[in-house]
Amino acid sequence: MHYPLGTVKRNIVRADKAVTDQLGQYGVATVHEAMGRLGLMHTVMRPIYTGARVSGTAVTVLLHPGDNWMMHVVAEFVQPGDIVVAAITAPCTDGYFGDLLATSFMARGVRALVIDAGVRDVADLTQMRFPVWSRAISAKGTIKATLGSVNVPVVCAGAAVNPGDVIVADDDGVVVVPAAIAHEVAEAAAEREANEGDKRRRLAAGELGLDMYKMREGLEKAGLKYID
Amino acid sequence: MHYPLGTVKRNIVRADKAVTDQLGQYGVATVHEAMGRLGLMHTVMRPIYTGARVSGTAVTVLLHPGDNWMMHVVAEFVQPGDIVVAAITAPCTDGYFGDLLATSFMARGVRALVIDAGVRDVADLTQMRFPVWSRAISAKGTIKATLGSVNVPVVCAGAAVNPGDVIVADDDGVVVVPAAIAHEVAEAAAEREANEGDKRRRLAAGELGLDMYKMREGLEKAGLKYID
Amino acid sequence: MHYPLGTVKRNIVRADKAVTDQLGQYGVATVHEAMGRLGLMHTVMRPIYTGARVSGTAVTVLLHPGDNWMMHVVAEFVQPGDIVVAAITAPCTDGYFGDLLATSFMARGVRALVIDAGVRDVADLTQMRFPVWSRAISAKGTIKATLGSVNVPVVCAGAAVNPGDVIVADDDGVVVVPAAIAHEVAEAAAEREANEGDKRRRLAAGELGLDMYKMREGLEKAGLKYID
Amino acid sequence: MHYPLGTVKRNIVRADKAVTDQLGQYGVATVHEAMGRLGLMHTVMRPIYTGARVSGTAVTVLLHPGDNWMMHVVAEFVQPGDIVVAAITAPCTDGYFGDLLATSFMARGVRALVIDAGVRDVADLTQMRFPVWSRAISAKGTIKATLGSVNVPVVCAGAAVNPGDVIVADDDGVVVVPAAIAHEVAEAAAEREANEGDKRRRLAAGELGLDMYKMREGLEKAGLKYID
Amino acid sequence: MHYPLGTVKRNIVRADKAVTDQLGQYGVATVHEAMGRLGLMHTVMRPIYTGARVSGTAVTVLLHPGDNWMMHVVAEFVQPGDIVVAAITAPCTDGYFGDLLATSFMARGVRALVIDAGVRDVADLTQMRFPVWSRAISAKGTIKATLGSVNVPVVCAGAAVNPGDVIVADDDGVVVVPAAIAHEVAEAAAEREANEGDKRRRLAAGELGLDMYKMREGLEKAGLKYID
Amino acid sequence: MHYPLGTVKRNIVRADKAVTDQLGQYGVATVHEAMGRLGLMHTVMRPIYTGARVSGTAVTVLLHPGDNWMMHVVAEFVQPGDIVVAAITAPCTDGYFGDLLATSFMARGVRALVIDAGVRDVADLTQMRFPVWSRAISAKGTIKATLGSVNVPVVCAGAAVNPGDVIVADDDGVVVVPAAIAHEVAEAAAEREANEGDKRRRLAAGELGLDMYKMREGLEKAGLKYID
Repeated sequence: MHYPLGTVKRNIVRADKAVTDQLGQYGVATVHEAMGRLGLMHTVMRPIYTGARVSGTAVTVLLHPGDNWMMHVVAEFVQPGDIVVAAITAPCTDGYFGDLLATSFMARGVRALVIDAGVRDVADLTQMRFPVWSRAISAKGTIKATLGSVNVPVVCAGAAVNPGDVIVADDDGVVVVPAAIAHEVAEAAAEREANEGDKRRRLAAGELGLDMYKMREGLEKAGLKYID
Repeated sequence: MHYPLGTVKRNIVRADKAVTDQLGQYGVATVHEAMGRLGLMHTVMRPIYTGARVSGTAVTVLLHPGDNWMMHVVAEFVQPGDIVVAAITAPCTDGYFGDLLATSFMARGVRALVIDAGVRDVADLTQMRFPVWSRAISAKGTIKATLGSVNVPVVCAGAAVNPGDVIVADDDGVVVVPAAIAHEVAEAAAEREANEGDKRRRLAAGELGLDMYKMREGLEKAGLKYID
Repeated sequence: MHYPLGTVKRNIVRADKAVTDQLGQYGVATVHEAMGRLGLMHTVMRPIYTGARVSGTAVTVLLHPGDNWMMHVVAEFVQPGDIVVAAITAPCTDGYFGDLLATSFMARGVRALVIDAGVRDVADLTQMRFPVWSRAISAKGTIKATLGSVNVPVVCAGAAVNPGDVIVADDDGVVVVPAAIAHEVAEAAAEREANEGDKRRRLAAGELGLDMYKMREGLEKAGLKYID
Repeated sequence: MHYPLGTVKRNIVRADKAVTDQLGQYGVATVHEAMGRLGLMHTVMRPIYTGARVSGTAVTVLLHPGDNWMMHVVAEFVQPGDIVVAAITAPCTDGYFGDLLATSFMARGVRALVIDAGVRDVADLTQMRFPVWSRAISAKGTIKATLGSVNVPVVCAGAAVNPGDVIVADDDGVVVVPAAIAHEVAEAAAEREANEGDKRRRLAAGELGLDMYKMREGLEKAGLKYID
Repeated sequence: MHYPLGTVKRNIVRADKAVTDQLGQYGVATVHEAMGRLGLMHTVMRPIYTGARVSGTAVTVLLHPGDNWMMHVVAEFVQPGDIVVAAITAPCTDGYFGDLLATSFMARGVRALVIDAGVRDVADLTQMRFPVWSRAISAKGTIKATLGSVNVPVVCAGAAVNPGDVIVADDDGVVVVPAAIAHEVAEAAAEREANEGDKRRRLAAGELGLDMYKMREGLEKAGLKYID
Repeated sequence: MHYPLGTVKRNIVRADKAVTDQLGQYGVATVHEAMGRLGLMHTVMRPIYTGARVSGTAVTVLLHPGDNWMMHVVAEFVQPGDIVVAAITAPCTDGYFGDLLATSFMARGVRALVIDAGVRDVADLTQMRFPVWSRAISAKGTIKATLGSVNVPVVCAGAAVNPGDVIVADDDGVVVVPAAIAHEVAEAAAEREANEGDKRRRLAAGELGLDMYKMREGLEKAGLKYID
């Protein structure tokens, strides 16, 4: 479905809250593996401070370069547990978001912002512990002149995001899990996680991955040559 | 006025010290807004450690790629409260500045370095709490073979800087305030700051920016469509 | 000597351990100076957490884009005190390395990883204090399908690395010291370091570098003009 | 709808051929305007030779970094008038496509390739007049080891592409028109084009855009100040 | 002098026309040398087609990201022989300029556009032989909502430009010559050019630069070692 | 072997001339495949004009950022059929090379320049048909103050180059073939080339690569799913 700029979709179907929260426990790398290595945002998206790990349901906003008008519009449609995902219609590093908007978002239960542009007041945001993943940090403010959209499908940092999808973000980046497969991905992630403890113990004891994963035969077949 | 490379201007008129210090309290984002959104350096300029906020009067130095000779020349003309602003005549990421120069600069009261190139010894600089905003971190040293200039107008990371201008730098970046308008900008910044407390309280209480800023009518006029 | 992809060299001659450790004390900037300003990796190589300084003997691994199969092969040939240096045959930011491989590497005495690509699980790696210098952070996993090589000469982030070379890495970046000149470089570094204490004291007392380094005559000869 | 990697959708609904061809006449800039400034790929996408302008219906292929296996799979499902749109699951500049694949594609009526990665044999492709828009040119070949997908929704260079959408590409870049609005966009583009001839004549005669577009009042209201 | 956004300076003093034209004959590399290696724009500025060489007097325009309103304002103040130099207040790659504006500029005698952003309709501009140097090519259009300035000092692609300065642009890039030193630079350029013919002949005859420039002694003094 | 900066190796062993010339016929993509996908320079290396294809024996030069002194030194040691490969000790885009040096190089039989930095006078170089592959085009000149080296092993644009190696360059980029395996690589390239004619004919006739390369079974085993 195609939405022209200037469209606000009021009602969206959010991924299940329990599953959303569960996905947050596994972290981005595990979730990305669990969903078949799709949905990762570009590595240019970095947290403004390290150590945060969050998950939430995506509320999307599409903005014009240098214009954050729709940031105020989206604030009306967020619910506790949401993560706002902001995409821009052309590359831009301006600072669309600062401590005032963060105050508003936090007051309404938003867990994080993921934005394919810049943010500012990062010292304040860090102190407030409002996590943001962004392409840039910039003190440059924005105008309020051109309409964008809210809760339409967007592309953010190379990943397609639909409203209601699960967003997981941590120091490794940001991954998008479509709402329809969130449950299935959570199960696959749980399974991966379950296996890791044993592997970690064996590797910590000095066992080689080569042996643990039984790779020697495959390497030999592929023609690996050992020389002295 | 055009100055050939190899010119050192001994005497410059610095912005008023009280105003310079006052501007530092507001931070880069507020100051940048207050001066009409001009004077911001490119977002590639990042602090070597987070949490520093400084202001000071610009002493400028223009250097050749890979050559930091003039860094030693500029040290003779700094005064307590200055920030050294270093521009390079072509793109370069070499490490022009390390703990020895920082020791010298600190001994002479310099508050920070802003350099459109690289610096090194950043672990030492961090421990010394000498703040630097730079384009790169590089262990690559520089030679001393070609003359540059001191206290001439320069372009640093995309911003024009005149000697004596006010520099404000924090985690959001670096902004340049021309000395002639420093007072006026400080007043505008103070006014912005004064308004923010009230706004922050209202937003924290859950009021929407849409209502607080009275944006609904404008959005409607612009044709914003709400759908379900 | 040219090695086709798919070659593992079991035995390498490592730089002397005492000299390797000694070089680590001086840090990257000093070592880079001491070896005549060669061997520095590109500044895009950044530590995943600040404050680490390590040195070690290089064990090299050459990998295919998006394929970390050889990471498991190299683990069999590391010794305590080694640093694994990973090069890729084409630009890639995928996450080749995470907490499981780090557990394995640490169990076998590896001191650090230097990789011209991405890594993941950086929150875990930080907590484990396993230092990594990389071009990117990415949750994107890798496959195990194509052979690379172990302990062949590689180019990592623009620097030529031979197995057994000394790697020094800290917040300033990564430098490679060929094993054959490690002793000589360590001596030169020690000498540089010895001189720095005195210089630091004099600069801290306010002496100008201009005078300490006796630069005034050279500047005058070069034609530096002072104006008012 | 979410498709796991390893899915080939055989049948897709293509945009109307007449409308697709019509859109190609207007060029990327006009079409992008006509559809409300959405759907443009990132400016990093450049033609391998200048002067080509094409439109066609998108057949999509999603590939693994460094792996062009699916390029051969997609060739079975193209029809005359199609443009192959290739997305990669992580950033990669490898050369996925050369003169042999181009020969195959041309034989099957494919009009162009749009790929968010690299291509090679560009001298041959230029001579064959097979137009390609790509992020890079690279002689680096790819392997055939990991499954991707064909005719699933993809994100290519920041733009969402669904199979059957209209792709328009020329020296200005690449734009995607959703099949569902192709007709409407073509009409809007035709209208824009119709107006341009008259504007061009007036501007060529020296009339100012200020007057032709009646901008003076708006500028005055906005507060524009003229000084001498 | 500081000008707030929203200022149009009607009257400027242009560099002498004869000198401006003369500088164009020497090309960017020679002029840049002749003025002491200052004033070069960043190498990211590339011509939209090769083979053009122009010079002209700078008329400056400062624009908001994504907003080309002032392009229409500047058109009123250009004179035959001018080059429009467009700077943006924050990084932006949008297409500010296309064939209609080019038609208008050509009708008024403008010789070229130099813009630190994107342009579009480049196939048309190439056919019209209207030369543009830009940072990007982008079909993305711009809005008309925010005031910028005309004929104020700007920083364009890292170079300071004052209205009336001489701009020289060719396949090597773009250089700015301050009006006050244009004559002196032209003389120095002429002198350089005069010397080059003889040098070229001697080098073409196989004479070494080493001998022609008498470099052997300097190299020996610097300690160059020849080995076999 | 480690060489300090300031070393000129007079005598090198060049790859066989016939083999060098033969490799040039195959082009970069074929040669890169034939040598097992190693030795390719970074894709940032682009020709200053399209359509050139050359091969030659590498004469290497290592230069300081912003300093082309050694370009004149290397000119004494080139022979007809050589390609000069220039590496820089730190990232730099300055214009190290222009029409005068090109005149000198051409007079001495040099076939091309490959430089990990910038060049200038590209309109002249194009007219002279002296091909250059470079990272940048820049009018910025260089000084002559610091020694580099000639005919030492270098890393150029990510590829290790030893003096005497074969360089092949065309519109697809630049590849390095170690002299010791040049003959073997030429044979492998010839074999690849021989096979391509038949493949091209079959693909041009509409045969699918899927069938020609017998990929269907492999894809099925890997689990490819066709849906409607």
